[in-house]
Amino acid sequence: MFQSFDSASDPTTAAARVGQLRDWLAAHDLDGFVVPRSDEHQGEYVAPHSERLRWLTGFTGSAGVAIILADKAYIFVDGRYQLQVREQVDLGIFTIESLIDNPPPAWIGDNLAKGTRLGFDPWLHTIGDVAALKKAAEKVGAELVPLDRNPIDEIWADQPQPPAEAVELHPIGFAGELAKDKLARLAEALTKQGATHCVLTDPSSLAWAFNIRGRDVPHTPLALGFAILAADGKHLLFLDERKLSRSVKAYLTQLADLRQPDQLEADIIELAKGKARVALDPVLAADRLRALVKDNGGTVVAEPDPARLPRATKNQAELAGARAAHRRDGAAVAKLLCWLDRQDAGSLDEIKVVTRLEDCRRQVGEETQMPLRDVSFDTISGSGPNGAIMHYRVSHATNRKVADGELFLLDSGAQYQDGTTDITRTMPIGRPSDEMRERYTLVLKGLIAISTLRFPTGTRGCDIDAFARHALWQRGLDFAHGTGHGVGSYLAVHEGPQRIAKTGTQKLLEGMMLSNEPGYYKNGHYGIRLENLIIVTSAEEIAGGDIAMHGFETLTLAPFDRRLLNADLLTPAEVDWLNAYHARVLEEIGPMVDGETLKWLEAATAPIA
Amino acid sequence: MFQSFDSASDPTTAAARVGQLRDWLAAHDLDGFVVPRSDEHQGEYVAPHSERLRWLTGFTGSAGVAIILADKAYIFVDGRYQLQVREQVDLGIFTIESLIDNPPPAWIGDNLAKGTRLGFDPWLHTIGDVAALKKAAEKVGAELVPLDRNPIDEIWADQPQPPAEAVELHPIGFAGELAKDKLARLAEALTKQGATHCVLTDPSSLAWAFNIRGRDVPHTPLALGFAILAADGKHLLFLDERKLSRSVKAYLTQLADLRQPDQLEADIIELAKGKARVALDPVLAADRLRALVKDNGGTVVAEPDPARLPRATKNQAELAGARAAHRRDGAAVAKLLCWLDRQDAGSLDEIKVVTRLEDCRRQVGEETQMPLRDVSFDTISGSGPNGAIMHYRVSHATNRKVADGELFLLDSGAQYQDGTTDITRTMPIGRPSDEMRERYTLVLKGLIAISTLRFPTGTRGCDIDAFARHALWQRGLDFAHGTGHGVGSYLAVHEGPQRIAKTGTQKLLEGMMLSNEPGYYKNGHYGIRLENLIIVTSAEEIAGGDIAMHGFETLTLAPFDRRLLNADLLTPAEVDWLNAYHARVLEEIGPMVDGETLKWLEAATAPIA
Repeated sequence: MFQSFDSASDPTTAAARVGQLRDWLAAHDLDGFVVPRSDEHQGEYVAPHSERLRWLTGFTGSAGVAIILADKAYIFVDGRYQLQVREQVDLGIFTIESLIDNPPPAWIGDNLAKGTRLGFDPWLHTIGDVAALKKAAEKVGAELVPLDRNPIDEIWADQPQPPAEAVELHPIGFAGELAKDKLARLAEALTKQGATHCVLTDPSSLAWAFNIRGRDVPHTPLALGFAILAADGKHLLFLDERKLSRSVKAYLTQLADLRQPDQLEADIIELAKGKARVALDPVLAADRLRALVKDNGGTVVAEPDPARLPRATKNQAELAGARAAHRRDGAAVAKLLCWLDRQDAGSLDEIKVVTRLEDCRRQVGEETQMPLRDVSFDTISGSGPNGAIMHYRVSHATNRKVADGELFLLDSGAQYQDGTTDITRTMPIGRPSDEMRERYTLVLKGLIAISTLRFPTGTRGCDIDAFARHALWQRGLDFAHGTGHGVGSYLAVHEGPQRIAKTGTQKLLEGMMLSNEPGYYKNGHYGIRLENLIIVTSAEEIAGGDIAMHGFETLTLAPFDRRLLNADLLTPAEVDWLNAYHARVLEEIGPMVDGETLKWLEAATAPIA
Repeated sequence: MFQSFDSASDPTTAAARVGQLRDWLAAHDLDGFVVPRSDEHQGEYVAPHSERLRWLTGFTGSAGVAIILADKAYIFVDGRYQLQVREQVDLGIFTIESLIDNPPPAWIGDNLAKGTRLGFDPWLHTIGDVAALKKAAEKVGAELVPLDRNPIDEIWADQPQPPAEAVELHPIGFAGELAKDKLARLAEALTKQGATHCVLTDPSSLAWAFNIRGRDVPHTPLALGFAILAADGKHLLFLDERKLSRSVKAYLTQLADLRQPDQLEADIIELAKGKARVALDPVLAADRLRALVKDNGGTVVAEPDPARLPRATKNQAELAGARAAHRRDGAAVAKLLCWLDRQDAGSLDEIKVVTRLEDCRRQVGEETQMPLRDVSFDTISGSGPNGAIMHYRVSHATNRKVADGELFLLDSGAQYQDGTTDITRTMPIGRPSDEMRERYTLVLKGLIAISTLRFPTGTRGCDIDAFARHALWQRGLDFAHGTGHGVGSYLAVHEGPQRIAKTGTQKLLEGMMLSNEPGYYKNGHYGIRLENLIIVTSAEEIAGGDIAMHGFETLTLAPFDRRLLNADLLTPAEVDWLNAYHARVLEEIGPMVDGETLKWLEAATAPIA
């Protein structure tokens, strides 16, 4: 299994560990220390080596910060983790704060005493984050002290080693563009930014730019490392040499000078001393990099990671790979849904469904010689009230038997070498209520509204987010998450900068891959989410129109559950879309399944009146 | 008439005037000077005294900037004035630049030579504008020099005096809240902003806060002036005493210390020397104010004008006034439309319609003892191709006879003491084409989508703008302006911060008044725009819903032209909305008109199938 169902967290270890940390701080003339969940790369997943927040506090969530003072300790988590954090941390030690309503900068402004010396590891906080923390600290007369070593690393006796998993090449057939051509494009972009160099700190950018993949963190095929790109083409690539086979090394040597990660600081210092103008992304790059450039005479150019947009706009090879990956993934999902329909409610539980789904994906992957490389995130398998928990992660402790009359929400994804998938379907167990059917249909109307939308060049994700909500809004309903996130190409399932959300100010460009996932959540009762991945198409003329319009191509291929539809709520155009989509699902997935699954698929995709 | 049809502009005067300006600059060791269209208050309308750009260049548009150098001169205008500017200015003197694509800061970065000393009048540019200009100038080694007097004022021999029109009280029955209570609210807001004082520079804020109106500029009932509000309640009001009758003076004295405008600088200096923390709105306040505060030891607190949001969220008295004003205005529009229908195409021209419309408004105003105070902007009366010019202003030079088979676009508004109106309708002259009917119906679908929308608290204008475009987008069409602007209460017809537009990041709050005006423009052929004013309603429960939702109440009451409808393109819900709206128009306007107009109105509002 690529996913564990442990809820392994022991609140009792924190007392001793926080004590050790306090001793260390006292010995180093500090009044406190900030412990973020992030590593040096600010990604969604971190290696066991970097699970410092978890080690110190017991909290296993994917976002959070702790602030440890001499007499008090605080942990900041967002809304989705409010319950979990109370089970995982020792409430005798930690006070819970809201990461959203009262984030560390606001908290510091309200709580830190004058003269407090608060330490932080400048490798683990972005330039933007540190600026906000510093501003807040200065306001109350406290001092934010960058440390040159992380105290947790000093007191964590059995800290795992940093990962050193093998790097593999991402074949040109999937990547679609040679790394040397990508690097040339990036070097050009640097010149336009007025920079002589930039530091790539996001391993997704490294993976994209050099056409490499790795296994350093769960669920995203990243090789942790850095690169310094130079406008003059003299690039430096910092990867632990233990990750590199002879052939990979030979390949990479053509593209950049290979360096050990511990040489990075020295190289930055040298560049800065040579008056380099170094581009750093304020929301991605560690503050340490800013300080190294600035303190050694260089100039920091605040610019977004130059690889973000080229990576986000997929080329034809990546799109072809995505389509193939989604056909295979659709076949696996069809197998799972067919199986699910044949189970007795009493015999099912959430973990069983996750396990079976992974089996289906493995099986299709083996049959098609495109093995499942990983799941793209921990499957969200929520029955009944667990479906209403938007980021639910099933564990042995929370696993629910499925009962008749409930809804089952299944949000999962896979990593194949040709593409990353992410799909959500919601199924009824037994007979759904009229309310469930009404709300399911309203959510589907939102998904169809995005799927069928045409929009002019220059339209941003935030301009269209509300189309996914309109049907819900008109009935006094909504959902508390964005409509869609960007998706990588055999990379992170959450990829920026493209988004369909209130915060999605990036223009939607041809080739961007996104999710389209409206939902509805009735707390304590059930959750509904429907998710397809979509691609921004090229702007095309519409007969009789004045301007060419973009639209979306749907990648995901799996039926929407007919038993949850209230067709009276659909317009004729919506029915047409659904029937055409289902016909396409049958046409593309049908040939990949047989027997029971094919029969099931035919029934599941039959047209509705 | 409140509107003139002059295109009075003489390109030949510029040569001598620019010459005089150049002499003045040379005598004062300057290489150039920036001439904006704005006055000290950054409003849409300026008094004749402040028409410096027009005097110097001949250009009469409502937005623009000139930069005069020793050997060259440039005028920057936006897209809507590209044709007009070429007719109005001497192209032997001025080079035309785009205010949008290449605004002065960008232009300076590309064109100004090192060492250039470019003068500007710091009273006529906002803090934000000057920051951008300075940054651009510094980059190329040029210097931006604030002048303590405006050279145009020195060379403009017959410059009109600053306006000194009578100030009147805005009765509490229309204002709905006593000025002293408003001022107390603003003083509280200052404390929250961490400021001891703020300078109100926007005469709309002055008018709102003190419950006064004036006549200093066309079409908006403003008294030009300033106020310094103090957190401790010791407010100063700077109004030319010639504007104040004894009774108005007595009233205002209770609220603030009255000062002459020429005392403002001295008072700011004194406050600054006393270490005041002065809030200034970076997008409204003159850079001169920033400099006065900063150079004299005070602190500038960059915060939005504290009156903006209270002014934008109308109270019950203002809303009741708006409803009454719109009933009267609807009756006037019905009279006009009835008359229009009875004219022969050949006998009509654009100016005739404007004149007649103003007559209708005057007549209804007199009959109801609520006289028309002004038009709220120059009526846009565009037939045929002129309708496609979004900000068309008819003059004797452009006036078109109306021909059969054309569309007529009429966008107009009125100022009554109880409210400001703004309405657009588009009518066919003779038989419209199928394409016109299709596009008219698509525009109407956009208007209905906004009218019927429900949305959660916290929704911003930019979140819903695209609903007005959806029907157009799906057919490859769009319109190149925002969907709606804020509207004042017997104040500016364009009022911030509320907007329904891509740039509308202000949350929509209960009581905000906005326009809802999608359109479609076929260049060189015809224009369609349909505009109602709407109010954000309080959030209300929807039966079966989870959360209370805002919606819009429609204020404007006038039929949409049935001859331009293609009912096949409307959904049943859209037909229901239109029929209900028309029934309401008849119910509310019917009793205010009689004879021919009533008969016409009954036919125009009859339900469609």
